[in-house]
Parts: sequence; C-alpha cells; structure tokens
Amino acid sequence: MFLHNKQLIQPVNVGKPDARFGTYLLEQFGGATGELTAALQYWVQSFHVEDAGIRDMLQDIAIEEFSHLEMVGKLIAQHTSKLDQTKVYDAPLFKIKGGGPHFLDSQGSCWTAAYINEGGNVVRDLRANVAAEAGARQTYEALIHACEDEGTKKTLHHLLTREITHARMFMKALDSLGKLDDPFFGTIPPDDTVKLVFNLSKGEDVRGPWNEAPDFEYIANPEPEGGMPPAPINPDDEHAAPNGKAPGGKGKARSHA
Amino acid sequence: MFLHNKQLIQPVNVGKPDARFGTYLLEQFGGATGELTAALQYWVQSFHVEDAGIRDMLQDIAIEEFSHLEMVGKLIAQHTSKLDQTKVYDAPLFKIKGGGPHFLDSQGSCWTAAYINEGGNVVRDLRANVAAEAGARQTYEALIHACEDEGTKKTLHHLLTREITHARMFMKALDSLGKLDDPFFGTIPPDDTVKLVFNLSKGEDVRGPWNEAPDFEYIANPEPEGGMPPAPINPDDEHAAPNGKAPGGKGKARSHA
Amino acid sequence: MFLHNKQLIQPVNVGKPDARFGTYLLEQFGGATGELTAALQYWVQSFHVEDAGIRDMLQDIAIEEFSHLEMVGKLIAQHTSKLDQTKVYDAPLFKIKGGGPHFLDSQGSCWTAAYINEGGNVVRDLRANVAAEAGARQTYEALIHACEDEGTKKTLHHLLTREITHARMFMKALDSLGKLDDPFFGTIPPDDTVKLVFNLSKGEDVRGPWNEAPDFEYIANPEPEGGMPPAPINPDDEHAAPNGKAPGGKGKARSHA
Amino acid sequence: MFLHNKQLIQPVNVGKPDARFGTYLLEQFGGATGELTAALQYWVQSFHVEDAGIRDMLQDIAIEEFSHLEMVGKLIAQHTSKLDQTKVYDAPLFKIKGGGPHFLDSQGSCWTAAYINEGGNVVRDLRANVAAEAGARQTYEALIHACEDEGTKKTLHHLLTREITHARMFMKALDSLGKLDDPFFGTIPPDDTVKLVFNLSKGEDVRGPWNEAPDFEYIANPEPEGGMPPAPINPDDEHAAPNGKAPGGKGKARSHA
Amino acid sequence: MFLHNKQLIQPVNVGKPDARFGTYLLEQFGGATGELTAALQYWVQSFHVEDAGIRDMLQDIAIEEFSHLEMVGKLIAQHTSKLDQTKVYDAPLFKIKGGGPHFLDSQGSCWTAAYINEGGNVVRDLRANVAAEAGARQTYEALIHACEDEGTKKTLHHLLTREITHARMFMKALDSLGKLDDPFFGTIPPDDTVKLVFNLSKGEDVRGPWNEAPDFEYIANPEPEGGMPPAPINPDDEHAAPNGKAPGGKGKARSHA
Amino acid sequence: MFLHNKQLIQPVNVGKPDARFGTYLLEQFGGATGELTAALQYWVQSFHVEDAGIRDMLQDIAIEEFSHLEMVGKLIAQHTSKLDQTKVYDAPLFKIKGGGPHFLDSQGSCWTAAYINEGGNVVRDLRANVAAEAGARQTYEALIHACEDEGTKKTLHHLLTREITHARMFMKALDSLGKLDDPFFGTIPPDDTVKLVFNLSKGEDVRGPWNEAPDFEYIANPEPEGGMPPAPINPDDEHAAPNGKAPGGKGKARSHA
Repeated sequence: MFLHNKQLIQPVNVGKPDARFGTYLLEQFGGATGELTAALQYWVQSFHVEDAGIRDMLQDIAIEEFSHLEMVGKLIAQHTSKLDQTKVYDAPLFKIKGGGPHFLDSQGSCWTAAYINEGGNVVRDLRANVAAEAGARQTYEALIHACEDEGTKKTLHHLLTREITHARMFMKALDSLGKLDDPFFGTIPPDDTVKLVFNLSKGEDVRGPWNEAPDFEYIANPEPEGGMPPAPINPDDEHAAPNGKAPGGKGKARSHA
Repeated sequence: MFLHNKQLIQPVNVGKPDARFGTYLLEQFGGATGELTAALQYWVQSFHVEDAGIRDMLQDIAIEEFSHLEMVGKLIAQHTSKLDQTKVYDAPLFKIKGGGPHFLDSQGSCWTAAYINEGGNVVRDLRANVAAEAGARQTYEALIHACEDEGTKKTLHHLLTREITHARMFMKALDSLGKLDDPFFGTIPPDDTVKLVFNLSKGEDVRGPWNEAPDFEYIANPEPEGGMPPAPINPDDEHAAPNGKAPGGKGKARSHA
Repeated sequence: MFLHNKQLIQPVNVGKPDARFGTYLLEQFGGATGELTAALQYWVQSFHVEDAGIRDMLQDIAIEEFSHLEMVGKLIAQHTSKLDQTKVYDAPLFKIKGGGPHFLDSQGSCWTAAYINEGGNVVRDLRANVAAEAGARQTYEALIHACEDEGTKKTLHHLLTREITHARMFMKALDSLGKLDDPFFGTIPPDDTVKLVFNLSKGEDVRGPWNEAPDFEYIANPEPEGGMPPAPINPDDEHAAPNGKAPGGKGKARSHA
Repeated sequence: MFLHNKQLIQPVNVGKPDARFGTYLLEQFGGATGELTAALQYWVQSFHVEDAGIRDMLQDIAIEEFSHLEMVGKLIAQHTSKLDQTKVYDAPLFKIKGGGPHFLDSQGSCWTAAYINEGGNVVRDLRANVAAEAGARQTYEALIHACEDEGTKKTLHHLLTREITHARMFMKALDSLGKLDDPFFGTIPPDDTVKLVFNLSKGEDVRGPWNEAPDFEYIANPEPEGGMPPAPINPDDEHAAPNGKAPGGKGKARSHA
Repeated sequence: MFLHNKQLIQPVNVGKPDARFGTYLLEQFGGATGELTAALQYWVQSFHVEDAGIRDMLQDIAIEEFSHLEMVGKLIAQHTSKLDQTKVYDAPLFKIKGGGPHFLDSQGSCWTAAYINEGGNVVRDLRANVAAEAGARQTYEALIHACEDEGTKKTLHHLLTREITHARMFMKALDSLGKLDDPFFGTIPPDDTVKLVFNLSKGEDVRGPWNEAPDFEYIANPEPEGGMPPAPINPDDEHAAPNGKAPGGKGKARSHA
Repeated sequence: MFLHNKQLIQPVNVGKPDARFGTYLLEQFGGATGELTAALQYWVQSFHVEDAGIRDMLQDIAIEEFSHLEMVGKLIAQHTSKLDQTKVYDAPLFKIKGGGPHFLDSQGSCWTAAYINEGGNVVRDLRANVAAEAGARQTYEALIHACEDEGTKKTLHHLLTREITHARMFMKALDSLGKLDDPFFGTIPPDDTVKLVFNLSKGEDVRGPWNEAPDFEYIANPEPEGGMPPAPINPDDEHAAPNGKAPGGKGKARSHA
C-alpha cells in the first residue's frame, strides 16, 4: 500500500524560473535515465525477488525514487511557473502541451517501459540497477553543468548524491551474493570457450587487463569456425513460383564468380 | 570499415525445425536483451570513449556480437525452414510476416533504440554493459530451458558462455579504472547525505550489508525534510479565467478540511 | 514524499495459479487502461492544477491507483508462481522474460506515456480522467468474464468498483466547476458555426438528440465552403530541377481531364 | 466508401508563412490531441457500436475530423511554402524531412495508435471522445495564443469551435444513454466499497463535493486491509540456485555449478 | 473535404466468423503493410507534391485505400461477431480489448507513423509507394494462404488485386518522370565512385547483372581508403577528470599490443 | 562472421565542428532514412532470400552500409568534439545525453525497427530497397544544402553517391527477375478489376499515363458496389445489457431521419 505526504522528502527552491532549463530537466522526469525508470524498475523487481532482504531494499529505494520523481516534477513546475512570460520558441514543449512536468524526455519523446531492465534473476536485476544509477548520475552531472540557478543546482546535487548511495547499496547486495566481481550466475556453467578473446576489430590494437593472460586467451586472428550455413530451403513465399520464372519474368542471367 | 565472411563464427545446426521455438528465439535477435542491442550499444560507445584500450575492447566485442546476431538469425532461419508445414496458429508471426529473422522480439514488438544504455562517461557505459550481458545471459538460460533440440541448445550454450566472457572483460575494464566496487565516478563529489538509507517501505523490514553501519546510516523512520512546495503560481492555461468563473460555470462550492 | 506499507490496501488471494491468465492481467499492469496509466496521469496533473481541493483529490486517487497497481502485480506474481509447471507455449511471455509482473500489456507491448492524457487545463484533465476510469472499468469487466478463479475475481471486482468511485469523484469535481454537462471551457468563445452538425456520412442516416434542434442545426448535404487551397508554391526539394526535366528524365506527357 | 472533394470544408488562408509556427501546428496533425487521433478514434468505434444512431454520429464526426486534418495539413503546407528562405536552425524538422505536413507531433515524435482510446462499450467510447475533444480544444487554444498570423488564427478558431460542438454532441449521446452523470455502466454492479474515499495523500487536505457525504464516505486515515502478500514461491529463474536463503545474509554461500 | 457513403466500395461477406483469423487480419488494418499506412502515406504526400496530375493520382488512390481500410475493418468486425462463443485463449486480443478492428497489428503492436515513407521529393515518394504496394500485396497473399473462408478470400483477393493496380499506376507515374529505371534524381550529381561495387561479404561470391561491367566496376578486395579517424578529442564528460585518475580510482595499467 | 578494420572505408574530415549540425546528421545515423535502417534491412533480407546471387548482393551492400554508418558516426563525433564550447540551447541533445552519435534521429526520437521494410518475397524486398535508397539520398541532399563545412559536404556527397549506386544495383536485380516494370509478382493472379482506376478525389481532376487507356479503365464517377455491411450482431461488451437500459439509464429517445 502506498502513502503520500504532501511535504517533499528534500527541499526544492528554484531561484529564477527558466522554462528552457525546465525542458532539459524532463530528461530526469520522463527520460531514459530518469526517476520514473528507476522507481518502476526497482519496484517491479521486488515482485519476483525471493530474498526478503534484497526485496525490502528494492522497495525502500523505489519509494525514495518516487519521492525524487516528485522533486524533479516540482523543479519543472517552478521553472515553468512564469510560462506566460516565455516566448514559444524558447520552450515550445510547455507552451503547446502545458506547463509543469510531463512523462516526456528533454527531446519530447514519450517515456517507454523499454527503458526498464529487469527479469528472471536477482543478480541480473542488481546489475541492471548499478547501471541505471550510473546513467542517472551521469545525466544529473550534465544538468548541473548546464544549470545557472543555485537553488536548482543544490537539489540536483542531492539527487546526484543519492544515486551514488543507491549504487553502493546495490553493489553491497551483489557482493553479499558473491556476484560483484564474478561474471557467472545462474545454473548453466559456461562451455570451454569462456576464456577466449577475439581480436575482431583490427588496427591499432591495444591490450589491457580485459584480454590478457591468465584470465583470457587472446586470439589475434580469429577464423570463422562455423562453416557455411545452409541456404534457406523453404523460401518465405512458400507458394511462390521459382524466382525469375514468375509470370512476366524476363528470366535470370547471372554467372558465379 | 566492416567486412563480412559468409562462414559463421561458430556452428549452427538445428536438428528439428520448430517455428514456435523460432518465435521465442526472436527475443535474442530483435528483443531487449538480444544481440542487436549488445552490438549497437558497445559499438556506439566506442565513438565517444577516449581510452584507446577500452575503445578497442568495445569494438572487438561489438563485432563478435554482430557475428552472434548472425548466428541467432541462422537459428531462426532454420527453425522456420519448414514453415509450409506449420499451422498459422502455431507461428502466426512468421506465417504473416514471412520466415527467417525479423527485428522483433518474441512478442512481436519492434526493436527500439530505447533498449540501449550509453552516453557521456566510460564508467557509465561499462556498467551498462555488465548489465546488458546479465540480461542476455538470463534470456539464453530461459531459452535453453525451453528448448528441445540438441543442436540448438549447443549453439545457445555457446552464446550464453560468451556473455559471461564479455561480462568478465567489462568487469576487468571497470576494475582497471578502480570502478568495479566504487560507486563514485565523474567530477562532482556527493553531498553529506551519501551514507543515509531511508526505510521508506515499512513492515517486515529486513536488514543487510546494503544498509548497515559503518557504510550506511539507517533512518528507520524518515520524515519529509522538504516542506510544502509552492503551489503553481502560473496556471497552465495562462489565459484562463479563474477556475469556476469560466463562462457557463456553476461556481464552486467547497470547504477546506 | 512517498511512503509504502508492505501490507496490501485490499486482499489478493489467488486460488489456482494460471500463467495464461497472468498474461491477460498484464493489461491492467502495463497496458493502456491499466493502473500505471491512471496513477501517473492523475499524479502528473496534480503538478499543474491550481485548485488546492482538486489537486488533493488527484493525489489521493493517484496514490490509491499505485496501491492498486501493486495489487494487480501481486495477482500476476501469484498466477506465475508455478511457472515451472507451465509449458512455454502457454505463457511464453513469462517463460522468456521471467515470472511476475512486467510493464507490458497482454500483447507484450511496452507501456508508453502516450497512453496518458493531460495538460494545460483542469477541465481537460478531469474529462480525461472520467475517460480513463471508463477504460479501466471496461477492461476489468472483460477480465472478470475471462476469469475462472474466484479469489482473483473478487479482487478484480473490487478494482472495478473503485474505478466507478473515482469516476463519480471526477464527475463531482467537473460539476463543481460547472463543466460536467457544458462542453465549453477556457477563454476563447466559439465562433458562429458552433451549432452546425454536418451529415458527412451518407446512407441510413439516423437522427438523435446529438444533432436535433434547438441545440443543433442539421446540415443534411454539406458543401465544401473552403474552396480550392493553393498548390504548393515552394516544392519540398527546394533545389530540385522542375519535375520531368531532371537529368535522365523522359519528359512528362499528360493531359488534363 | 470514402469520397474526397479537393475543395476544403472551410477556408485556409495563411497571411505570412512561418515554418517555425508550422512546427507547432504539427501537434494537431500528427500529435496526441490532433485531428488524426480524433478521426481514427471515432471511426474505429463505429465498427463495434451497435446503436445505429450513435454509430452514424461517430461516422459523421469522424469524416469531419478527416476534413479538419486536411485543413491543418494545408495550414502547415502554407507555413512551409517559403522553406527555402528559412534557416535550418529555425525549422530543422522541415528542412531535413521536407516541407508540408508529416505524421509527427510538434516535438518530432511519430504519431502512434497508443493515443487512441476505444473499445468494448459505447459508454466508454463516448467518454473517451469527450476527453479527446477537450484535449484538442486545449491545444488549439495554446496554438492561438502562440500565433501571430490573423488568417491562421481564424482557421484555428473555427477548428477550436468544432471541438466544442463535437463535445456537446458526445455529451448529448451520453445523456441519451443516461450516462452523462452516472459513473456506472456495464453489467457488473459495484461492491460495497463504492462510496469510500481514502485520504492517502496527507497534509493540507482540502475537502470538496468529490469526497463529502452523503455521496461519499471519507476515510481520513486509511489502513492496509490486505495484509502481507505471500512471497514469491517459485523464483523467476526456476532453475536457479536458491537465492532466498540469504535474508540478511552478509556472506556468500553458493558454489559454481 | 472528405465524404463517406455507408455502403462499401466492394462487398464483404464472411461465411464463418473466426476470431483467430480476425487477429491475423489486423496486420492489414493496423499493421506496417496495412491500408492505414497506404492511405496516410499517399495522402500526406499530396500536400507537398507540386505536379497536379500526380497529386490527383495520390489523392485518388489514398481515398481508395481508406475505403479498403473500411473493408478490412468490416472483415474483422464480422470475424469477431461471435466473440462470446470464443475462448479467451484463442483470441485474447479481442476478448480483452473488445471486438471489431483496432489500430494494432496481428501481434498487438500499435500502428506507428514510423511505417510511413515520404518527404521532400516526388520521385522518392513514388518509389516508396511502389514498395508499400509490394508489402501490402505480400501480406494479402500470406493471409489468403492462411484463410479457410471463401467469402473472406474473395475480398482479400480483390484487395490484393488493387495493390497491383496501384503499383502499376505508381510505376507509370515514375516512368512519366523518366525515373522508373534511372536511379538518379534530385539536383546533386554523383561523384566518381558511382560505378564501384565493393565485395565486402566474402565467400561463395556470386556475380550478376547488378555488379557486372559495363554498368559497374567490381572491386573484389576492397581496402579501407579513409585511414584512421581521429580519436575523440573532447571527451563526452567534458568536466571529467582523466580516466583512471578519478577519486577512488586504482589507476590504469595496460600495455599496447 | 563480421570483421572490422579501424580504418574508414572513405575519409571523414570535418573542418569546423558544429554541434548543431551534428544534431541534423543524426537523421542518417539513427533516423528513418539513415544508414542503420539500410544496413539492417538489406542484411535481414539476406536470411530469407533463396537466390544466392541476390543474397550475396544484399550482404555486400549491407556491409557497406554498416561502414557508412561508421562514417556518419565519425562525422557526428567530430562535430561534437568541441561540445564544451557549445551552449546547451544550441545542442541540448548532446549536452544532456553526451557527445558523439546516438541511435536517435535529428528530432531525438529513438530508432525503431518499424522503419524496416522486408519480408516474405525477394521482389517485395528489392522494391523496398529502391525506396530506402531514395529516402536516404533525399536526406543527404537536404543535409548538404544545410551544410556549411566543405569537409563534411565532401563526405556527404560520397554517401549520397553510393545510394545512387545501390539503387541502380537493386534496379538491375529487379530487372533480372523481370520485375522492374511489372507490378505483378507472387503466385496469385489479379482478379478482373485490375485495370480500373477510380476517380475518388473530385475537382480539378488531372489525367496522366497512370490512369489512361489502354493500360487503365478510368471510372469517373465510382459508385459503392459493396452495399451496406451488416451491423455488429454481437456487441463488444458481450454481457452488456441493451444500451440505454443499463442501470441508471434515462432511456433513449431518438428518431430516424
């Protein structure tokens, strides 16, 4: 059961409303790296994660992200509070669609659940969450660099901070499962190609710990090992006349190299 | 510059074509966790990553993922090679849209770049990649469990294995940057709330290393610290008459609690 | 600020898990008429609605819809709780993507904010909400008719009931603004065509109170009153040679009827 | 059967072409509240509505909306008729994609059928239509406020007017079914919670006719009545090693297969 | 101005309603190759095409496609006319969303304007239309092969026929511009690489008229001619500390191959 | 199996970086007419095309398009290489999402596989490809007209040229099948309406070779030949009480015209 307190979890005080900046802020309200993505991703994971502790953590953080979504929404509401003094060219999204937040990103694209990464395994979920936090943090940094209002910056700084906190929590949870630095999870062990690294992009190759012995075996000149696949034996158009012999066809005339 | 060898990087041999199973395989061709997502995500990152070694790694793995996308496509092509003997109800996607792979997921939804997670910082990118590999591995495991054809399973097992390899490579790259177990990156240090954990989902709370001292400070009963946000001072409809006084309005009659 | 209590707002007790039915239930979790749409629509409206009472109502109902989203999620979680005993063909969505709810509809399409209808005016918002409730109620009725589990039906019946309650609340709010039965709102009065009804679909015409005097003036045989629009005077391809005179062109030869 | 007369249903005369304003006009051509949404929504409803009169009304209005879509398209065509004198930065959408209308909104997002609200019941459909008209009217008002060309304004004013007419028609149709002010429809009566209103958003609560007796019973402090839901009993990853044994677990206790 | 006659342009008589087949028919109502795509594509082109004859042709065909969309809708309406006797598992889309047509494809995905191909030049438009007709024809053939109802087949056969007619019309229009067999159009002549064909996919190469002299010059072993592109000189994260030297970093240690 | 050479297939040298122009270039990286669409469309076709020569051609061109995608990506990377000197308002997409290419179009919309046109028949595929090349060429022309940097123009000119080359190759392949100027393909012959052209858009009709004898039979005043379709006999809401008689209904009162 959800509950709501009209007071904010942390303060939001915009000094100088700027509808243009409000447009950029949408990235964290209805964008890929935004608070809605985070809140819904962690919360939906909690339905299938069986570990009670991790499930509780996911719910705690999800609820905080909803509270952050509210803060970002309030930032946008304040930045569009003087919309009548804004030229349409400077903030067409709000002038046409109305002031305040919308579930769109800074480019006006609708939020989509395709942004969410979850399902089937707690390790997969937690890794997705570490990635989500990194994306959110990155966008907050970009917004802070683009921001000229101190009050807004202070709020964005807090939100950036919390993404670091959450990332640390997810890392701790992964570590408790022994999966922070172990790529394996699940029940199917890898086959014997697990150590091979293929140098498939040639020229100015640079080596590093991600392709060096003893962890990896570097294949400098990989060869195709799969042979030629069979040609399609049942053409898509199952009822088609042979190509080139269809009514009106001029026939085909080609030679093999 | 891209090059292609018509031979496959690893073998694909389907014993018994099954167009229904072909439908499920689409998840790894045109689905969220599929090879197209991986190939394009790693490759597009390589354009903005400045570290030459990590850039090379991203390109090497991206090219392998394109080669894996080809393998999944060949699996689907073989599984739909007897489509004329399949009832439409069993595989409507292929019967209506044609045999062979399409850039759709197992539910028939178009692939979208919204699946891709990248941008602005190499640490963010690498974390996104560890998550992408976990998602891909998870789907391969689900497909293997659902698969009855040994030849198909062998190919899927190889593809699952390679996701583990790539995950290990991305972890090594993160570790080389000191960022595998450090949630911080970028240039903006966190504020002083970075250690707080808020217990926002109440009831049957379970503690764990992700919310315990000394790394974290647990707030068992969080209070709103942001106060009441200001009400909208510039209504969306900037030219609107005051609500309830619009032409034809019956007026409003309400009391405050 | 959001808060969460792990206890449900109302009970969810599935008697006989059925992953196939779980697929249909997704329509109310991640579908167009589902609880996420309702929750986010009402809540995002609350940021720009200036009437404190209606804003409070929107937030109250939004929070209840989040709590209902949780209930639907729990229904789905229970219906997929025996997924290991389900054949992939019966519930491919869960078998491939994992058990429990996802932000997809019953056809596997991602939830999109394009489902949300809001912006710019409280009357527009409230009308959108009456419509949203009608859609949600309709889907619950369809689900109840398709459902064979009594426990599930009971929960769905409650959720259907609440959509009626909310619809009544939105109607009351519209009525308090004098806008339940008055099509006009905003500041721009209609022009003098406001009473005209055009019979543009001919044959077996049926009249009714929606096109009868004195409220309406019925135009049985409408004529175009706009004349011929000017032809494009600046072709799209602004640098194009005149059509038919491009290099290699055979010229054009056509007559006017 | 559709027919078309090249003359417009109402005049379109743009005084001073402005490709920037053309961009905003796209909102009513290929946007959520635009004429395509209205035309297709009403028309598709006509296929399943059994009441011959309401079906005829839906078709009449749908055809008018198609004619309005044409008018908006002509507005855009005229506003982009001097595109060769426009700087790319002022109207990149048209400069890159070509002049004239496209099925995109003012932010460049593709029109999607997710904007349409219809299905299964005539009351639901009519309520969706009242909402659609309100959205369309609201956008026309925003466009008129942003418009500096008198000829364009005159056309937009007519289009705004017709949305009011249609809204009135849909209201009359709802009223003829007794459903304009009655939230109930369909065959399943509500359960005994239908009068309850839950105060789930706390602080500065404001009461109004939408939550007052005798129509409603206000629950000032709602409690969860659903109890704790069962934990997932069948983990997503049905073959996974038991996660679930790690409540609060700090260490890792699992081995690789 | 649009007009509508409730009589159909051609007959629709379904002998034996089958909601499952109705699902497949959606591909031509709300799918990529469906009648809505065709109608809207040709019609929207007519706004920017300056040749009055071709513009008239586009409008004539567009209106016919709207009339065909109506026919497909009526087919679906009839196939779902006994939905109460259909099990939900056989036609979940209609059972959950309601009978009759919806703007979805056979997989339940919303129609999107991304299916439309048009803009900026009449030759480009006409080529897009030849392609659209080919796609539509292909899907009708697939539907006819999957269909067991003679009445439905007869209607589908007519619709397939008309796609051939339209394709011929578009070909004639292209030919009148000299562009049916001339790849060039527009105002920018090609550079001197226009005859080169690169053999970039190696193995079992097959030659044909599309890569043979004198029209083409075949490059059997293409080499990269673009050299190494410069590395990113301004990292994405413009304010980032040098990689590996960020706070907490362990430094990087890698060698060049 | 894919391979990659870090050298570019053709040179990319941007003289003066301009992040605004970089935004427009995205149209050919992640837009509808862009290189990703071309590469994936041709390549996915190669899985179901049975003609070995055409399959090889599709793969050769697909690989070149991937190499062109790389070139466009490098253009964008260079145009955003001085992003720290760019104001956010001039290039918000890159400032918020990071420099370098993304799989978005010039309006910030995610690339979607809905742009791809393929399936089921080689003639359909080749026609789709001729159309795809025309769209790509058109966008390159628009970009060249909007471009002020000579180095960028030179690269764009090469890319435009190659679209012409590919179009010629696809035309040759169609011609080898006798299908360049023959609208028919597949196995189902047209019915006897194949020569009819319906004048459905009235007023200022213009005739041309696309509707003249002997190829076509022009119907100046088409009549509906399909008669009235049956009304829905099984209302959507299969369990609904008759309209107007639902609980609370006021009854219906309407007369037939």
